[in-house]
Amino acid sequence: MTDRVKEIVDGIAGKLVQYRRDFHKHPESGWTEFRTTSIIASKLKELGYEIKLGKDVICKESMMGVPSEQDLELHMKRAVEQGADPELVQMMKGGLTGVVGELKCGEGPVMALRFDIDSNDISEVQDESHFPYREGFVSINQNAMHACGHDGHASIGLGVAEVLTKLKDQIKGTVRIIFQPGEEGVRGAGPMVDAGVVDGVDFILGGHIGFRATKTGQFICSTDKFLATTKFDVTFTGVPAHAGGAPEAGKNALLAAAAAALNLHAIPRHGEGASRITVGVLNAGQGRNVIPPNALIKVETRGETSEIDDFMFESAKNVIDGAAKMYGVKYDLKLMGKTKSGESDAEMMEIVKKIAESMDFFDKNEIIDKTNMGGSEDYSHMMTAVQKSGGKGTFVMFGSELTAGHHDYHFNFDESCLAPGVELYVRSVLNILS
Amino acid sequence: MTDRVKEIVDGIAGKLVQYRRDFHKHPESGWTEFRTTSIIASKLKELGYEIKLGKDVICKESMMGVPSEQDLELHMKRAVEQGADPELVQMMKGGLTGVVGELKCGEGPVMALRFDIDSNDISEVQDESHFPYREGFVSINQNAMHACGHDGHASIGLGVAEVLTKLKDQIKGTVRIIFQPGEEGVRGAGPMVDAGVVDGVDFILGGHIGFRATKTGQFICSTDKFLATTKFDVTFTGVPAHAGGAPEAGKNALLAAAAAALNLHAIPRHGEGASRITVGVLNAGQGRNVIPPNALIKVETRGETSEIDDFMFESAKNVIDGAAKMYGVKYDLKLMGKTKSGESDAEMMEIVKKIAESMDFFDKNEIIDKTNMGGSEDYSHMMTAVQKSGGKGTFVMFGSELTAGHHDYHFNFDESCLAPGVELYVRSVLNILS
Amino acid sequence: MTDRVKEIVDGIAGKLVQYRRDFHKHPESGWTEFRTTSIIASKLKELGYEIKLGKDVICKESMMGVPSEQDLELHMKRAVEQGADPELVQMMKGGLTGVVGELKCGEGPVMALRFDIDSNDISEVQDESHFPYREGFVSINQNAMHACGHDGHASIGLGVAEVLTKLKDQIKGTVRIIFQPGEEGVRGAGPMVDAGVVDGVDFILGGHIGFRATKTGQFICSTDKFLATTKFDVTFTGVPAHAGGAPEAGKNALLAAAAAALNLHAIPRHGEGASRITVGVLNAGQGRNVIPPNALIKVETRGETSEIDDFMFESAKNVIDGAAKMYGVKYDLKLMGKTKSGESDAEMMEIVKKIAESMDFFDKNEIIDKTNMGGSEDYSHMMTAVQKSGGKGTFVMFGSELTAGHHDYHFNFDESCLAPGVELYVRSVLNILS
Amino acid sequence: MTDRVKEIVDGIAGKLVQYRRDFHKHPESGWTEFRTTSIIASKLKELGYEIKLGKDVICKESMMGVPSEQDLELHMKRAVEQGADPELVQMMKGGLTGVVGELKCGEGPVMALRFDIDSNDISEVQDESHFPYREGFVSINQNAMHACGHDGHASIGLGVAEVLTKLKDQIKGTVRIIFQPGEEGVRGAGPMVDAGVVDGVDFILGGHIGFRATKTGQFICSTDKFLATTKFDVTFTGVPAHAGGAPEAGKNALLAAAAAALNLHAIPRHGEGASRITVGVLNAGQGRNVIPPNALIKVETRGETSEIDDFMFESAKNVIDGAAKMYGVKYDLKLMGKTKSGESDAEMMEIVKKIAESMDFFDKNEIIDKTNMGGSEDYSHMMTAVQKSGGKGTFVMFGSELTAGHHDYHFNFDESCLAPGVELYVRSVLNILS
Repeated sequence: MTDRVKEIVDGIAGKLVQYRRDFHKHPESGWTEFRTTSIIASKLKELGYEIKLGKDVICKESMMGVPSEQDLELHMKRAVEQGADPELVQMMKGGLTGVVGELKCGEGPVMALRFDIDSNDISEVQDESHFPYREGFVSINQNAMHACGHDGHASIGLGVAEVLTKLKDQIKGTVRIIFQPGEEGVRGAGPMVDAGVVDGVDFILGGHIGFRATKTGQFICSTDKFLATTKFDVTFTGVPAHAGGAPEAGKNALLAAAAAALNLHAIPRHGEGASRITVGVLNAGQGRNVIPPNALIKVETRGETSEIDDFMFESAKNVIDGAAKMYGVKYDLKLMGKTKSGESDAEMMEIVKKIAESMDFFDKNEIIDKTNMGGSEDYSHMMTAVQKSGGKGTFVMFGSELTAGHHDYHFNFDESCLAPGVELYVRSVLNILS
Repeated sequence: MTDRVKEIVDGIAGKLVQYRRDFHKHPESGWTEFRTTSIIASKLKELGYEIKLGKDVICKESMMGVPSEQDLELHMKRAVEQGADPELVQMMKGGLTGVVGELKCGEGPVMALRFDIDSNDISEVQDESHFPYREGFVSINQNAMHACGHDGHASIGLGVAEVLTKLKDQIKGTVRIIFQPGEEGVRGAGPMVDAGVVDGVDFILGGHIGFRATKTGQFICSTDKFLATTKFDVTFTGVPAHAGGAPEAGKNALLAAAAAALNLHAIPRHGEGASRITVGVLNAGQGRNVIPPNALIKVETRGETSEIDDFMFESAKNVIDGAAKMYGVKYDLKLMGKTKSGESDAEMMEIVKKIAESMDFFDKNEIIDKTNMGGSEDYSHMMTAVQKSGGKGTFVMFGSELTAGHHDYHFNFDESCLAPGVELYVRSVLNILS
Repeated sequence: MTDRVKEIVDGIAGKLVQYRRDFHKHPESGWTEFRTTSIIASKLKELGYEIKLGKDVICKESMMGVPSEQDLELHMKRAVEQGADPELVQMMKGGLTGVVGELKCGEGPVMALRFDIDSNDISEVQDESHFPYREGFVSINQNAMHACGHDGHASIGLGVAEVLTKLKDQIKGTVRIIFQPGEEGVRGAGPMVDAGVVDGVDFILGGHIGFRATKTGQFICSTDKFLATTKFDVTFTGVPAHAGGAPEAGKNALLAAAAAALNLHAIPRHGEGASRITVGVLNAGQGRNVIPPNALIKVETRGETSEIDDFMFESAKNVIDGAAKMYGVKYDLKLMGKTKSGESDAEMMEIVKKIAESMDFFDKNEIIDKTNMGGSEDYSHMMTAVQKSGGKGTFVMFGSELTAGHHDYHFNFDESCLAPGVELYVRSVLNILS
Repeated sequence: MTDRVKEIVDGIAGKLVQYRRDFHKHPESGWTEFRTTSIIASKLKELGYEIKLGKDVICKESMMGVPSEQDLELHMKRAVEQGADPELVQMMKGGLTGVVGELKCGEGPVMALRFDIDSNDISEVQDESHFPYREGFVSINQNAMHACGHDGHASIGLGVAEVLTKLKDQIKGTVRIIFQPGEEGVRGAGPMVDAGVVDGVDFILGGHIGFRATKTGQFICSTDKFLATTKFDVTFTGVPAHAGGAPEAGKNALLAAAAAALNLHAIPRHGEGASRITVGVLNAGQGRNVIPPNALIKVETRGETSEIDDFMFESAKNVIDGAAKMYGVKYDLKLMGKTKSGESDAEMMEIVKKIAESMDFFDKNEIIDKTNMGGSEDYSHMMTAVQKSGGKGTFVMFGSELTAGHHDYHFNFDESCLAPGVELYVRSVLNILS
């Protein structure tokens, strides 16, 4: 059996790289993955999967951090220009991106595989030292870049979908492949869970390229301490004034935002575990000689436990309120994303560990039982939902040399991890649904 | 004589409002006044003025704060779409906007009149409470608005040009009408002076709607204490990192900029006179969950004397250097504009005072000898140059009720000051060149 | 007549230096001038002045910024140890320092002369380069130093008192010599005015060594634009916590105070005139490894007009409220001093100008009509009160080379200005009460 | 045997409380424990211990954070007034406090017991709600308080010393009891190690009341992840100036310190583990109306690993350098303390665990194998030194209800943990040296 799986996977290795580079060149950030979703959905249909998209996979009421109507329409137009199927895109109107494909193989448990597909709001570096640039698949979309490897995840997902159809006879149960939008900003998992995407799931498997596994050949079998996180935007509104003639007549929103940014970062560390705070974006002001009447900050807090994240978020609200008070400006705080902490199951860990050990690609000395996430992944939202109904889950990491840290505009990973990634998912399905 | 001047001016009162509203609807900020210049230049030619534009009025080497080539081209295209003469626009390539028209009326001194024509980088308010919106002449250009009355100045300038041609026989000498670009950011006067625009000028007259004269009927005959000012941009460059996984790997440019902004505003007040500091714009960051590797601030300092402005600028450089050091980021400081302090001449003040007193429009109790600018105006650059060669100058203010302070997006002025404005300039020319 | 005055003054020149050095060596800050007051009061009585002190010259209810009972008692004890009369000190219990002496010379108007006598809260520099150290009269009192020349003012006042008794026959009216405590912190004039010290005064004259007159031989005849000012203390109270084990359990008062300090200095400059803000003292924290639960800041705002000072103070209150909010700490704001803006009278200016011109000591080219205070002096409080009842006043400055700016711990002035100071006051009295 | 140990310990239970209250009433912070050391040393001698103190237990060159000569002398004087032996105090001149007592019981290994004896720089709360106040043993020393339980540790140490002399016949080896000064500020262990205090030690045992064990009856058998820490002071030196007259002439050290404090707290969290930063004290300024020329901050950084602490300290140095640069002030950074991370040995843990399980006092369900320190303790310095030479160690925690967190001025612990504390140490010695 081993040989046949490896043979099939090896047969699509080239295709995996093509998929990945195509996704990399056309990155789409959360709720705008119209082209990515369209391509995946078409392929899944072609392969015989039963597919669901639009409101069947996304609960509109649970969506946070959705771009404006106008922006969404521009993205729908762009996606079609870049090869998306106009009919499918229309089904995603409102930003309801993402797709779920199901392969029913008789009686048996339901196993979900989850792949995230969105990109980051980053402008990719454009120079010869950067592999994607040199090879001609650097991002062509403005302020969008696959700087976290989700292009690889989507590619692996498509590979798994294809390989499984060829091994259908060895599977007893249902495979549900979830292509999730909006992982960045932890916005996608919640609305998918609320739309019922993990209902009835007995086992769930997800993974990430790189992160805590930064050597090719490394493999991490489970992940704990997903950081709970809260994402929010704050707009400050002051009063403009002539900066030379009557500065005292203004209410300075830029300084309120700057004071907020500094003091947010000064929220105390937490004695019970890891915490994070980042003001990732600050945009303020109109012109050089106008007291700035407007400012926007994009913020996220994180905590090793949901309690710590709550402490950070509550403290942050005080800082923002105080900063606005200081400068006599108004503010509006809008929640943009939220996810919980999470822990993998030991049982699932043991299964994938044995599979990894059986594969030549992975270095036996670099197969690690468990790591701490030390970051947030809204996969924890799905896994926690599955665990609540009695199911099991784990989250793995595929080792890969990286050219720069995740979310850096020089980020790139080693494509040699794609095929083994497919193989590991496939073997896990065969093992669990046997 | 009085009657004839008034009669002619009254005859064009409606046209003045039309000009003003057309300029208001098509605001163009510094170095992008392609349409405004084109319309004025065409009109001047039509009226028989000898005109100069492009490199004849702007010294390219002295230009600061010029938009990128790409932006300039977009603006040239836009200007033509909005009615500019493509040939004239081509002469302004590189942002060499502004135009000078000369009317030679025989032997005699040279008198310059200066009108500034650029708009602000502000998004005009779009609601029924705002007169320009209600009357359909609100700005249609993105992030551009006439929020300082230069649309009125340009309109008055055109009116003066027309009226003078009808009174040519009463003039002995040369009238040079200067339509200056880029007053906001005090970028325009320097390059015009360096191009020789005020060479040979014996008298110079300029003015402003509103500012220190905020009642219709008020008139201020001269202005002192123009604030010297320095404009500069700073870009901070750090290192991006995953905000959850490895925040310590980043170098945070946003926090460096925020710390700079706060501490710049904390530069001490100066015991010798007024000072100003404004960080008008701060843009930083890539995405919410990325340690921000980039930041831009747009700053200006001002001082009642050039020494005070220098103190502010030198102190600012220390703050910026320290902020960069704090966060281990690099920075680049670029000078974007600079102008000097200035004082009007008492003689010129007396002349315009008598003229104002002779006009019915102005309230006798509201004719004021002198005010402090309490702001910057690069007219001081031109006036100082004229004074250095033995000429005289003054800067007047035409009273007008305002709906909001200058540079506020609700700004509007009372159009009834336009015709009296024209009359005052015309009578000054007739008086001085008689 | 001229000769006799000069002769008498010259006769006490050595004594003036002795007085000054004695006061300098025993500096006493606001409301603790027990020794200084005692010495002056004794001398006045000796000279035959009718004296008032304690509650007759200080309205207890109007006192601000009074040290604690305990501190006052320590100071009373110290004063006695340093030579004060215990009985007189007892009359000043509660910090009611300062003394008024009256010399009645028959019918005529009342002329007040005002001398301030308090020192600063500064530790004087102790090295050979410093004249008072070298000459052995450096401060022996902890954290107290005459760094503003009030030791000289007190010495001049005593000299004037002595000289006038010898010229009594030439005076028609009443001379009231006011020795005011607590000018630093602008705390003394208000309670004196409220106690009736300037009631019935027709003319008031006060002055300062140095300040805007920093050349020996210079003389400034009047002062305008006394900065209105407000002094206040803020204590922040948070919650302590172990900085290693549970930093999140603390509420950080130190950071609230630091944020307040920075953002207070960022209150906008005022377009209508000069403003000031200073956080002069910040003391916070308990131990290095404890989240700081306590902080104190000492703040002052100033404005060219009382309106500007009010703007500063109101803005400051917002900043403080916001800073406390940011860090979840409580605060208490206590008013410590307040004085108004003020303007000298032209008539008085003319009188002292003529006197100065008649004196050899002053350089004719350096006698200046008028200066802007550009600082605060609660003399303005007294002068404004006199003007309100129809009286006249001016505030003069005696030129003196300084070794460092006022309030610097290297400050020293040129003692050669003391005798001419006495002469000018005496001649002014002779001129006005003639 | 069990019974005899318990019987002896119970016999001194009252004495333990007396010792503790006496130490509590006379708290002495790092390098000023003259009285505490004197009392302990006298008692040890009385009990027949061979004692060492002064330069035999403290390496002068390794001392950090030592008070000034003058302060030390005041403390020596105070200590004698409060009952210290003048001769012993003289041996500690220079702050060489702390004492080591050795009990040699024939051949066998050397076992060290370590007790820290210093207090915190905190002013103890003085009201009826506070037990030590109510019972009359509240601190009588200014700005000193036992707010971390070291009074209890010293008391337990004395108890252990006494009990062991009665069980000498059951011991085979040497017991070395180390009474360490300056644990707060992690200043004491280093100089003791450098003086050879743990040379030849085979086993080391230390412990803490409370901390992670906040229920009476609880017991923690070993501690990991001592936070590495660095303590340092920074003084900023600027230039004073008159805050009203010439604020621009000053260089503001207070604002430099405030900017440093805020931005130090904004140093990023570390992805590899816990970090801490605290500016525990900030003192700046001279007087309200003087631009502050001086500032002092007391800072500490911590890290779960020494690498993380190094990252924090290096980042902190940049922030301080940048803050000084911003305000044009000079600064001086002085290292005041430094200790490493550390881990207990599993073997030692097992031994104390069995002993704890054998004692009635401890709740079987509350005996915990291991905790993370989540704080710093320079015991890690001693333990690491012992481990380097092949020895073993552990650090235990004695459960106690607390009235407030450690370092809070309301802190108090439950004295019922004292006798069981003595018993546990004694039994450990009997077990290991048997």
